[in-house]
Amino acid sequence: MSSPSLFDRATDHMIALQESILSSLETLEGGPAFRHDDWQREEQEESGNPAAPILRGWGRTRVIENGRFFERGGVNLSVVEGRFGSVAPTHMPGDGRHFRAVGVSLVLHPHNPFAPTVHMNYRRMERGSTGWFGGGADLTPNYLFEEDARHFHTTLKAVCDAHPAVANHTAMKEECDRYFTIPHRGEMRGVGGIFFDHMMTQPEESFAFLRDASQAFIPAYLPLAERRGGTPFEPHHRQWQLLRRGRYVEFNLVNDRGTQFGLRTGGRIESILMSMPATASWAYDHHPAPGSDEARMVAALQPRDWTI
Amino acid sequence: MSSPSLFDRATDHMIALQESILSSLETLEGGPAFRHDDWQREEQEESGNPAAPILRGWGRTRVIENGRFFERGGVNLSVVEGRFGSVAPTHMPGDGRHFRAVGVSLVLHPHNPFAPTVHMNYRRMERGSTGWFGGGADLTPNYLFEEDARHFHTTLKAVCDAHPAVANHTAMKEECDRYFTIPHRGEMRGVGGIFFDHMMTQPEESFAFLRDASQAFIPAYLPLAERRGGTPFEPHHRQWQLLRRGRYVEFNLVNDRGTQFGLRTGGRIESILMSMPATASWAYDHHPAPGSDEARMVAALQPRDWTI
Repeated sequence: MSSPSLFDRATDHMIALQESILSSLETLEGGPAFRHDDWQREEQEESGNPAAPILRGWGRTRVIENGRFFERGGVNLSVVEGRFGSVAPTHMPGDGRHFRAVGVSLVLHPHNPFAPTVHMNYRRMERGSTGWFGGGADLTPNYLFEEDARHFHTTLKAVCDAHPAVANHTAMKEECDRYFTIPHRGEMRGVGGIFFDHMMTQPEESFAFLRDASQAFIPAYLPLAERRGGTPFEPHHRQWQLLRRGRYVEFNLVNDRGTQFGLRTGGRIESILMSMPATASWAYDHHPAPGSDEARMVAALQPRDWTI
Repeated sequence: MSSPSLFDRATDHMIALQESILSSLETLEGGPAFRHDDWQREEQEESGNPAAPILRGWGRTRVIENGRFFERGGVNLSVVEGRFGSVAPTHMPGDGRHFRAVGVSLVLHPHNPFAPTVHMNYRRMERGSTGWFGGGADLTPNYLFEEDARHFHTTLKAVCDAHPAVANHTAMKEECDRYFTIPHRGEMRGVGGIFFDHMMTQPEESFAFLRDASQAFIPAYLPLAERRGGTPFEPHHRQWQLLRRGRYVEFNLVNDRGTQFGLRTGGRIESILMSMPATASWAYDHHPAPGSDEARMVAALQPRDWTI
């Protein structure tokens, strides 16, 4: 009997990861709060769009809307395989048209303006005979609490430091800073985190790192949610939160490669746009008052070492 | 003494057009309601972004936020000239790196969910010794009133029909349907209008058409605003409006070539994002109840001849 493949073991991990994160989040919510939407997709016909892969797979979408703690969010598992169309993606390792992917993807937007929005996704991807891990997590507060940013980053750094053969925290932190920057604004989406892709040497150690990094999400984020979720706030704090969410939407729809790629290649729209907040606002040429908490937040949207 | 160039005459027209539209809109608002933001931009250094042109110019941004009638919107004039970077845009007529453009661009989001959002822009563009006109207008209701869609389209058709040498309403209407379709949803942003570009033969007649088409904006739109702006509404109408605005944001940030191009090439962010509504919402897998007014609206987001 052959041992299970790394893909199958990664799938088992992702299934358990989703369960475990949901369980922690529902404890915070005070009970079952996520809507369950299981989906299955049969092999598609060629769509005529040469960039669209033929896909089949299944997923477990778990969405929260107007929860006690979270205003909107989701924790989604998806397991897909397929063949790229005649226009296979460039810059992707491996050969040939066949690929498969398993991952958990999460975005959470709390009600409270002082509790940060957070994003996480981890995945195993294979193309032809080449396989790799990728993913990361990043934090998007509306108000800066330096100790929160420090806690989030040091928690992730500890995981990287425990896997020195495959993970370099400095490099992964810088990759995250680069990726989550809104280029036309010269401003990061939030205070960063870690991000990596194409991790393929030392597969067992890479998988061990992926397991630890993805399981560190809860200890990295939950204490911040608990600490800030009950902070009293005024309408102007809420208004600022909505403006910052407008910026979040701007990054995700204009700049996020995953969103653009997913929407252009026939991805599942509702799963992709799970990242959108319930509500976002825009205002013309808005600048927070100099010296205000809001201005201090904007000033912090630049790369910075949060572990010292 | 040489007669003024077509560019200068187009500039004079755009200046007058902006004034005249603002005057009609402020009548609807019951008084001065637009914030004035005049800007000037000196020639920029090479930015290092090979797609970014070197630009200089000026503009008159007129923005409304939380007006009596309009929740957010703008009517912007801009006059720019510059040189394309080493990566000049493909698919653009003319030769060489020098270009100039003058245009008026408008987006209006009313408060009342029954009053439609509207977009319009008209422009004169020149590259090297080649010049052309382009633009159009399209209507995005949240609730379908067939007579409103008919009025908007027939008003624009009458202008096209008055300039048969340069304007073909059927072609311009179809071009608008194509452009304002959200491809991943197979759904139009609204009920369309007209759109054209690269209108360069018969420049005098083209300019006459552009003048008439741009001046037809007020008679095409204002009656709808006046007719629907006072309709009583309930919270669920407002909620639907916010969801439709989420779709508007989705199109503009993911699919609109002007927005993507502008943000990527160093355009003026605040002018570009003037098109955003004050507030937009997202909900997971939202479908209006079969037979509802909301479902009837969604069903109408497909190409249709509104002039018969």
